[in-house]
Amino acid sequence: VARFVHEVHMRWSDMDAYRHINNTAYLSYLESARVAMFFYRFEGFAAGTVIARHEIDYLAPVVFHPEPLRLELWVDTVRAASFVVHYEVFDTAVDSAVDGGRVAARASTTCVTVDFTADRPRRLTNEERAILAGFADDSA
Amino acid sequence: VARFVHEVHMRWSDMDAYRHINNTAYLSYLESARVAMFFYRFEGFAAGTVIARHEIDYLAPVVFHPEPLRLELWVDTVRAASFVVHYEVFDTAVDSAVDGGRVAARASTTCVTVDFTADRPRRLTNEERAILAGFADDSA
Amino acid sequence: VARFVHEVHMRWSDMDAYRHINNTAYLSYLESARVAMFFYRFEGFAAGTVIARHEIDYLAPVVFHPEPLRLELWVDTVRAASFVVHYEVFDTAVDSAVDGGRVAARASTTCVTVDFTADRPRRLTNEERAILAGFADDSA
Amino acid sequence: VARFVHEVHMRWSDMDAYRHINNTAYLSYLESARVAMFFYRFEGFAAGTVIARHEIDYLAPVVFHPEPLRLELWVDTVRAASFVVHYEVFDTAVDSAVDGGRVAARASTTCVTVDFTADRPRRLTNEERAILAGFADDSA
Repeated sequence: VARFVHEVHMRWSDMDAYRHINNTAYLSYLESARVAMFFYRFEGFAAGTVIARHEIDYLAPVVFHPEPLRLELWVDTVRAASFVVHYEVFDTAVDSAVDGGRVAARASTTCVTVDFTADRPRRLTNEERAILAGFADDSA
Repeated sequence: VARFVHEVHMRWSDMDAYRHINNTAYLSYLESARVAMFFYRFEGFAAGTVIARHEIDYLAPVVFHPEPLRLELWVDTVRAASFVVHYEVFDTAVDSAVDGGRVAARASTTCVTVDFTADRPRRLTNEERAILAGFADDSA
Repeated sequence: VARFVHEVHMRWSDMDAYRHINNTAYLSYLESARVAMFFYRFEGFAAGTVIARHEIDYLAPVVFHPEPLRLELWVDTVRAASFVVHYEVFDTAVDSAVDGGRVAARASTTCVTVDFTADRPRRLTNEERAILAGFADDSA
Repeated sequence: VARFVHEVHMRWSDMDAYRHINNTAYLSYLESARVAMFFYRFEGFAAGTVIARHEIDYLAPVVFHPEPLRLELWVDTVRAASFVVHYEVFDTAVDSAVDGGRVAARASTTCVTVDFTADRPRRLTNEERAILAGFADDSA
């Protein structure tokens, strides 16, 4: 089992008057990677999950470049009707001794599975649990 | 008959690396004023209009300030299934001899009335025409 | 000492395909209130603070309406070079027995004071500490 | 001489309550392609151009998918201190008899070259003219 890796492109206008990518843009980057993770795996799932919580730590400023950021995602804390997605955001334009990029941010999102018809939380199915198990990070 | 006047607040992160409000943010300002114009007047209308075209001229750069921009709107070119909304965006933080603010942008939007069920244009109703007539700009 | 209260307008396009305000938009609402809190109080301060961390809990979905959300803010955890801003986001369009609106979200932001010239954290000044003390929430 | 082709990824939250990509998001897509066109070719240039005007026609609604949109760009109307970038936005997820995708939007942007130090328009250099000539669309 390995991390899910996804490249996300910044938008030039995501930079703010400090000439850094504004903190509000990162949630969109997390969304892009999370949606890529689940879009074709859970069609019903995609329509049945809401965001209950985000935590994000900004570790280094990012200056726009056309090359994408690299996001690495994994899942833990799978409960009856929720799970947590973790992210590391790598700025590949900045050298790093460890790997191809500097960690610009770390974040986590609590997702709750919802029955939109009844407008309340619903239990994860066995199929969904199996898919989420594939996103566990054994290296962690 | 007079222009529809609406105040719109900028967001600090609408500024870009040039320390000016980015051109992409203005369409959101136009939207905020246009939605305010129609939201309570046409509830079905609000759900039955799509944007077919925008034109926008940027006349002066805007630097963020907490006070709102003032937008003035009027309607013309009412056709069978479309109408045009015009806008002037005033930056009230900049002195102007003529009135309370400098014109930062001028724009127009072609709106098409749509039957979403049939997924095709639909004719404006008489009630809608009467409301749009109230937004004509006699001074123009 | 009381909470800082600020009204923030949603944008219609902040709604997503679920017809709820998208989770990514809330950080912009927090920013608008936080900037209003500090913009005229700390001109140098505004230019000398970066966001180190956000936490946000989404408690109830919000549907767009033209009336503003009400945000209440207060400050605690004032350290040598950082402080934490707390927020409650009230949806005033939803009835509530307790006060004028339902709590839609709670959040907190860790701000770090920075010397941009030297590109490193800097100590809060006594003047800044005095201003932040005025935003403590004695009711908490 | 051929069109400049660039792929742009949508964000899921660019969809609005109609479940279509909101009209305000397209200017960001145009920006992404335009920045990719010029970012490494004109470093000074990138810092010395402002947007004077946009026109955009929305021809077909777009529903989010993780695969990118394909944008085709070309340049004409090169004047002393301005030029026009044209765009076609193709939704590659929709079949088309003619080529790989349906035209979702057509747009054009008037860019003005600016001397930011003097805060006024400046003439295009010969080097800039040569680069822009490479973006003419001979097929048009």
